[in-house]
Parts: sequence; structure tokens; C-alpha cells
Amino acid sequence: VRSSVLEAALEELATGGVGAFSIEGVAKRAGVHKTTLYRRWGTRENLLLDALLEQGRERVPIPDTGSLRDDLVAYGEAIVASLGLPTTEAAVRAIASIGDPDAPLAQAARRFWSARVELAGAMVERAIARGELPPETDAPVVVEALLGPIYFRLLMSREALDKRFVRDLADLISGAAASPRARRRAAS
Amino acid sequence: VRSSVLEAALEELATGGVGAFSIEGVAKRAGVHKTTLYRRWGTRENLLLDALLEQGRERVPIPDTGSLRDDLVAYGEAIVASLGLPTTEAAVRAIASIGDPDAPLAQAARRFWSARVELAGAMVERAIARGELPPETDAPVVVEALLGPIYFRLLMSREALDKRFVRDLADLISGAAASPRARRRAAS
Repeated sequence: VRSSVLEAALEELATGGVGAFSIEGVAKRAGVHKTTLYRRWGTRENLLLDALLEQGRERVPIPDTGSLRDDLVAYGEAIVASLGLPTTEAAVRAIASIGDPDAPLAQAARRFWSARVELAGAMVERAIARGELPPETDAPVVVEALLGPIYFRLLMSREALDKRFVRDLADLISGAAASPRARRRAAS
Repeated sequence: VRSSVLEAALEELATGGVGAFSIEGVAKRAGVHKTTLYRRWGTRENLLLDALLEQGRERVPIPDTGSLRDDLVAYGEAIVASLGLPTTEAAVRAIASIGDPDAPLAQAARRFWSARVELAGAMVERAIARGELPPETDAPVVVEALLGPIYFRLLMSREALDKRFVRDLADLISGAAASPRARRRAAS
């Protein structure tokens, strides 16, 4: 029951948008009684948050390839693939359109991203443990340096979200090619 | 006349959103006849694009401090300040909400960002000329690595857009601190 309800919740958001999203609508779409959903999730925001987190766990697992650069490429490609689904894209645009930071859905989005960025920080922690990054590296900033430009292209500049872009970002962030100090010392 | 019309256009977008944006509405707000606006801009999208570019030129000039890291900090801080204006924030959310990539407003946003990212690329070109970055560095990727996480926090994660975040991004992107090769070689 749970996974079909969460799937119905994402479809409901994609078709009706943020304003029309309701526990009643999701119950109808999933073919279950609304009291079942109220008992389990309490509010529409909790239901939505749970659906988005579940989708993230399924579709964008945190990779562990043994190198930061390759982890970032795999993670970035999974995010791009997920954003290619009409349901996900519509949910993302609906969330981006909310201006009031205290709106319950804005708060749910904030909790979602806080959880996702922390999970993805495991890629950075492992790179530190392998000696690829200095111990004081701030994991969320590294994760956001990858996530940010992908969402920027989707929502703002609408440039192509292709594999080359993800690779270029991963190269830049993992720092190997970008650092003039690294290059100058390698050449000497 | 031109600057008061462009200001009125941004206010119109902020109050009425994308759907309600019209040359008629802007003309009324600016107190000029609509035929004047049609003669000069032709379509509502051209008017909107011009207003957004003008605002960018005024509020987010491209810095030239003599170092890539400091250029990125200055540019990032100017963008954050600009996004703190309710008019700008509302325009950004309205543009992010457009799903149809062929919508004239989505196309205008694309032209806007293409022009802005190219302008900001001057920071990267100067860093290459100074020897701070390798000559093959892709300027748009560097610019988007700064812009992206700022818009990501505004639109998605809603985490604080503070000076520390901008500094951390600038440090990461400019590559000096982030590169393990640089650190290993500096220590040896």
C-alpha cells in the first residue's frame, strides 16, 4: 500500500500542482480510503515529503565507485535522469514557485534537501578517508556545487543537461584539473 | 522613458506573475501609451528580457579585483543581494515555474542567461590570462558552478544565502584549497 500511495502522491503533484495537492486527491488516485492516509501521514506535507524521499532513495542512490570524480559523475547522471521524468520535473517546478518560506510545502522541501544533501555527503566523507580531499572539506558545499548547476540549467538557463556537462562539473569539483597550483607543481 | 518602462515591467511580473504579464499592464503602470511600447519592443517577451538584462547590468556588474577567488566572491555577493529584492525573487520563481521549454518566456530566460553567463565568463578569461587557471578551462562551467548553488538554495533547499556560503563556493571553485594534488605537493 505504502509505495502505491507515494507513487500516487507524486502523480497528484505533477498533474495538479502545489495548490491542488491534497490527501483526499491522493487517496482517490491510489484507490484507498483517506482516513488510512490521515492515520499514517497526518498532513499533506508529511505525505509529500515521504513520497519525494522515497523517490530519491529509489532513483538516485549514493554511488561508491572508489573515486570522488566518478561518484560525482554517477550521482549527477542519476539526478539528470530523474529530472527527465515529467513527474519529477513538475514537482521541482511546483516547489521552486513557492515564495513563502514558511509555507508547509516549502518547509517539507527544506527537510527533503537537508536529508538528501547529508546522505550525499557520504561521497565526500569517503574521499576524505581515501586522502582525495583535505579533512576540513565542507561536504554540503561539495554536494551543492554539483546539484546546483544541474538545477540551474533545468530551472533558469535551460541549457542542455547532457553527460558532458556532468563530467565537466565533476572534473571541476574534484579539483584535479582546475587547480593552477596542482598543475604548476605537476609540471615542475 | 526606457528605464521607467523596464522598472515597471519587473514590478508587473513580480505582482501578477508570468500569466498576467502584458505590454498593456506595463504601459498602464509606467503611465505611457501601449503603442509606444509595442513600437519599441514588439512582444511582451522582448520587453521582459530587456528589463531583466538591464537589471543585471545595473545590480550585478562583472567584478575585476585581480584574483579569480575575489571576483567570484564579489559576483556571488552581488547576485545574493539582487535575489534579496522581492521583485527579483518573484521574477525568478515565475520563470522557474514554466514547464514548456518553447514558451516565449522560457526562451527569453534562456537568452538572458546565455548573455549573462557569457559576460561573467570575463572573470574566467582574465584568470586564465593571469595564469590562475589552465588555458583549456571552460568558462561557462566555472560561472555556473557559482551561480548554480546560489539558485539551488533559493529555489530548492532554502538554506541560508549568507556570505560564508559564497566564500566557501569561491574557495572550492578557484581550486586552490580543494585540490588534494596541490596539498600533497605543497606538503612534500
